Amino acid sequence: MLLLNCAIATMMPTPAYGLIEDGCIVINGDIIQWVGPKSDLPKDISQQDAQDMQGRLITPALIDCHTHIVHGGYRATEFEMRLNGASYEQIARAGGGIISTVTDTRAATETDLLQSALTRVDALIAEGVTIIEVKSGYGLDIDTELKMLRVARSIEQHRNVRIKTSFLGAHAVPPEYASCPNDYVTQVCIPALEAAAQLGLIDAVDGFCESIAFTPDQIAQVFTRAKDLHLPVKLHAEQLSQTGGTQLAAKFGALSVDHVEYASANDAKVLSKSGTVAVLLPGAFYTLQETRKPPVYAFRKHSVPMALATDCNPGSSPLSSILLALNMGCIFFGLTPEEALAGITRHAARALGLNDCGIIDAGMRADLAIWDVSHPSELAYRIGFNPLHKRIFGGQLCH
Amino acid sequence: MLLLNCAIATMMPTPAYGLIEDGCIVINGDIIQWVGPKSDLPKDISQQDAQDMQGRLITPALIDCHTHIVHGGYRATEFEMRLNGASYEQIARAGGGIISTVTDTRAATETDLLQSALTRVDALIAEGVTIIEVKSGYGLDIDTELKMLRVARSIEQHRNVRIKTSFLGAHAVPPEYASCPNDYVTQVCIPALEAAAQLGLIDAVDGFCESIAFTPDQIAQVFTRAKDLHLPVKLHAEQLSQTGGTQLAAKFGALSVDHVEYASANDAKVLSKSGTVAVLLPGAFYTLQETRKPPVYAFRKHSVPMALATDCNPGSSPLSSILLALNMGCIFFGLTPEEALAGITRHAARALGLNDCGIIDAGMRADLAIWDVSHPSELAYRIGFNPLHKRIFGGQLCH
Ligand SMILES: [Zn+2]
Ligand SMILES: [Zn+2]
Repeated sequence: MLLLNCAIATMMPTPAYGLIEDGCIVINGDIIQWVGPKSDLPKDISQQDAQDMQGRLITPALIDCHTHIVHGGYRATEFEMRLNGASYEQIARAGGGIISTVTDTRAATETDLLQSALTRVDALIAEGVTIIEVKSGYGLDIDTELKMLRVARSIEQHRNVRIKTSFLGAHAVPPEYASCPNDYVTQVCIPALEAAAQLGLIDAVDGFCESIAFTPDQIAQVFTRAKDLHLPVKLHAEQLSQTGGTQLAAKFGALSVDHVEYASANDAKVLSKSGTVAVLLPGAFYTLQETRKPPVYAFRKHSVPMALATDCNPGSSPLSSILLALNMGCIFFGLTPEEALAGITRHAARALGLNDCGIIDAGMRADLAIWDVSHPSELAYRIGFNPLHKRIFGGQLCH
Repeated sequence: MLLLNCAIATMMPTPAYGLIEDGCIVINGDIIQWVGPKSDLPKDISQQDAQDMQGRLITPALIDCHTHIVHGGYRATEFEMRLNGASYEQIARAGGGIISTVTDTRAATETDLLQSALTRVDALIAEGVTIIEVKSGYGLDIDTELKMLRVARSIEQHRNVRIKTSFLGAHAVPPEYASCPNDYVTQVCIPALEAAAQLGLIDAVDGFCESIAFTPDQIAQVFTRAKDLHLPVKLHAEQLSQTGGTQLAAKFGALSVDHVEYASANDAKVLSKSGTVAVLLPGAFYTLQETRKPPVYAFRKHSVPMALATDCNPGSSPLSSILLALNMGCIFFGLTPEEALAGITRHAARALGLNDCGIIDAGMRADLAIWDVSHPSELAYRIGFNPLHKRIFGGQLCH
């Protein structure tokens, strides 16, 4: 397939957006064979399956590198209670909070979990997404953690999308282990990790390092086991306070540290050395009406790659629009539109340990998004507007 | 037509959401003939055109009561410059700001203006909107103001939607009158108002009362002429500072005052007496990263109806999602999901002087939105997700 008459934001580091004004892309099977300005198109390229893009913009297909998109139930009732003045305690007493999602996820069948996830997956696909990271972490028992991961894996059978799974047993301490969180780690989290790894259900191991979740020591235990199993790690770190999670993750060579509102300039320096991506999650910042912003200036100074993601989850970020995450990254965190777009393409790929996507270059997978806009800055500028024309997934034009 | 097996949020003031759990709606032509619980359905109602809603939620169709959706160009370049550190002065020198939209709108053909507006109108329609208010105000000369209003009116010929137009000649002082804004009012704004009224192009008269726009005296001049022409008024007031616009508008019996971040408790009291709606515009609050919030507590205390709208415009609110305005009204301004939904139905209708829509009741126009959700609070809770199943416009099932 030959794509003609398009602007191409390759997302190579230079020039801005890696922009090619009048470009061509040659696709062979599911691989990009050639990309460049039309004037340089090799003479021997077949014009047979040529597609006129009518001046549209092509970017790498988008990547949502941090979601909890598989979960039971939803929490609109709790949202409404809070806006009607209920306290967190009243909500907890009424069965709200993360434990309500755990209860609903444990109770849900795999079919129900899949169906509800697909409605949100479809919203992302409609915006040009082809890769979605999906975490476990609402089971908090071995069976339900495995169930969530099986459902996540099965999404690929139902949609033209690639799924990367992260095991997040260390997400919250379930009520039955409230008095002995260390036992939860050794008796549930690590055995679930081992079982899931054995079944090939995991691409990475994640955790939530926070005063309301797990300590750095507990996370280190989980990460040590992950390393034994040759699985890469990533971490929810410094979201609500400075706990040292970022430096711990860096020590384990983490793919990413996520949220990082409370990360310091020194944390940024450490991340730079470990090559870890900082994943910014403006949907949670917005929903929780946080005021502390991630240290973007320090990430820039130390060349820490920044990604953006939806954090799609039923509590702190019921967001299923990657384009809105893009816009919010600019508005809330002051990212430039180019940094923000790199955050859902090139740097999002790196946050998932992928090196076959996120840029448009020869040899990459032919996962592309075709847009009814004339310049890539428009993607970040508009709010709640989806200018996607079509996706190309593995070399195939599709929705 | 008989709609069966649905929950109905009639948006009558009581009970919450005017909710009917297992309801029916009978539609005769383009009018709602009967609504109520299934158990009360009159025996003589024909079951002929019965539609099983399969448990879905039905609300009044949504109303976006404040937009600048007809405009030339877009301002992604300026957005990008700002995020790259350019000052407002540098942007103005590069031709940015509202004047760039005026230039683009003056240069655009009616066909171009219509086509670009329709992409945004379609985004609203896809979310269940059937009524859109559209303002002029990027012409700032007589011909272009008339052109914008003609384009706004013509939208009804191309889409299943009702348009209400507002003349906004007093939006900004164009460069050619920078040294003599009073002359702009008398030589351009008021003659344009008279010409547009004569052509039947206006449903209401709007203005922008602010230090960077027009003084209360200048607005009063425009409003006085509007009253002579028997046209209702509304006003962009107290957005960036307290100017007295709200009380001026109330004195003229305005349908609405819009933005009102800097309105006082006393302003709320005055609005309550004039029966004026406070239209909250969280998209601009978000885009401009404002911190001063409208006095929701005072509006509640004095029973001032609150509406919500997108303020869809290319500068301070490039937002074309009414569902996101709904969510932002809750997150930023602390509206309850019920208040927020009333703000894009019942109170939005009132902000436009309409009494045939915004609630589901016998005698109202059959403009309805059918949703794949089980409770109305879900509409405000989700972010960047559109659960619309279908719209009914004037009694007809359509997209
Ligand atoms: Zn998360
Ligand atoms: Zn406005």
